[in-house]
Amino acid sequence: MTFTYKQKVLFKYCDPAGIVFFPRYFEMMNDCVEAFFDQIGHPFETLHKDGGVPTGKIEARFHAPSRHGDHLSLTLTGKRITRSTFDFTIVTTCDGAPRMTYAATLIFIDAHGKSTPWTDDLRAALTPYLNNEA
Amino acid sequence: MTFTYKQKVLFKYCDPAGIVFFPRYFEMMNDCVEAFFDQIGHPFETLHKDGGVPTGKIEARFHAPSRHGDHLSLTLTGKRITRSTFDFTIVTTCDGAPRMTYAATLIFIDAHGKSTPWTDDLRAALTPYLNNEA
Amino acid sequence: MTFTYKQKVLFKYCDPAGIVFFPRYFEMMNDCVEAFFDQIGHPFETLHKDGGVPTGKIEARFHAPSRHGDHLSLTLTGKRITRSTFDFTIVTTCDGAPRMTYAATLIFIDAHGKSTPWTDDLRAALTPYLNNEA
Amino acid sequence: MTFTYKQKVLFKYCDPAGIVFFPRYFEMMNDCVEAFFDQIGHPFETLHKDGGVPTGKIEARFHAPSRHGDHLSLTLTGKRITRSTFDFTIVTTCDGAPRMTYAATLIFIDAHGKSTPWTDDLRAALTPYLNNEA
Repeated sequence: MTFTYKQKVLFKYCDPAGIVFFPRYFEMMNDCVEAFFDQIGHPFETLHKDGGVPTGKIEARFHAPSRHGDHLSLTLTGKRITRSTFDFTIVTTCDGAPRMTYAATLIFIDAHGKSTPWTDDLRAALTPYLNNEA
Repeated sequence: MTFTYKQKVLFKYCDPAGIVFFPRYFEMMNDCVEAFFDQIGHPFETLHKDGGVPTGKIEARFHAPSRHGDHLSLTLTGKRITRSTFDFTIVTTCDGAPRMTYAATLIFIDAHGKSTPWTDDLRAALTPYLNNEA
Repeated sequence: MTFTYKQKVLFKYCDPAGIVFFPRYFEMMNDCVEAFFDQIGHPFETLHKDGGVPTGKIEARFHAPSRHGDHLSLTLTGKRITRSTFDFTIVTTCDGAPRMTYAATLIFIDAHGKSTPWTDDLRAALTPYLNNEA
Repeated sequence: MTFTYKQKVLFKYCDPAGIVFFPRYFEMMNDCVEAFFDQIGHPFETLHKDGGVPTGKIEARFHAPSRHGDHLSLTLTGKRITRSTFDFTIVTTCDGAPRMTYAATLIFIDAHGKSTPWTDDLRAALTPYLNNEA
């Protein structure tokens, strides 16, 4: 299973060159992950009450610029789950053409900021999205 | 030679967990690169009049969270220059302890968004910062 | 007629106190105005090709903090249209309770940044939203 | 007494029209206020440990656009202090020409988000900046 998130390129995301300013892309990535956790029944606003899922590692490639008004499609695919981490990719396309590929690792932490094992609930919610082929 | 940039962690950079929100780290990376181009005599506001240096590729690792009020030190080191790209790292520390390591590739583009060879001036300005050892 | 825009309070909008960081509210205001221009058939990505609608004046009051996960409702009402300006308000509520009230003036400008009369099309599109009572 | 803060218009502050995106101006206002509290010996990172100074009310006027590379000067002047609020203005100029004027009210709150009287220390620190003439 994968999770898809749609995002129009808004004015606020664009730089003086009229294309998405790259730090804003990372906001979109975070929004996509936040929407994904909504989808799997563990919204960020609940999850962050006594812990969190900070990002430990990122690899990103920008294939072509995205412009104001572009309709982007972000597809999140799980890659690996360990005791307390989740690796995933988000592939961003516009009309099927690649714009950005993003691979990142989330770390599940407790209220003290220490990595901690995924709860059974969270593990069960994340697992269906694992897809090593994609 | 390396280039060092200081940044206090401001209120605006922090998330509800009181630590730097990771997309904001990428803003700091961009600010550091912008300050570096100032330093080498090619400020972004001039460079972007008829071209630019978009980021093509990023690898980032977050070693420890940064908190509001932390005094960060960002050190930029060039790694490789090709016909139209520049690879570099930025190592972010606080009191000597690593917070984030960042490796990225800039692409020199012309006013039409096509990659184009560095001008002799730019190449000469970037070269002293190349340091394959660091 | 009024225009309503829904926005969940995302993680990225919140500060270390766990409430919306006020500059992020202004991003939401801009997103609402951008969605409004979509709605009336003059999307920002078209409008900004040879002009724009910068904001000349703002008054904002924050009535109560908004928290991560809150579902906000933003209602835009036109107040006055002149030769080249548009006054409007956006009232932001959560479950009917006021969070922020915003009054602003947009200025229609040409490609040189000079204020210019609204086109007949734009004037006709904006006029139905004028409501001096609200 | 007044407090002056310098800010170059960075790439990240600019929109596709090449001018400061107005929500980014409010970030600069927040940065200026944060630097002001540093200056008076009550840094935000300390102040926010068990309270804060959220903004209750804002009036802003944009007089002329600011462009990438502009060197802005922000001057903060206190206008009025009450039991738990502080009114101030920030006038932003570039080479002496006005760009933005900002008037806002801060509210001193405790750890529960309730407005609370300024401590004697804070009141003593803010008072020298009151200037009803400016």
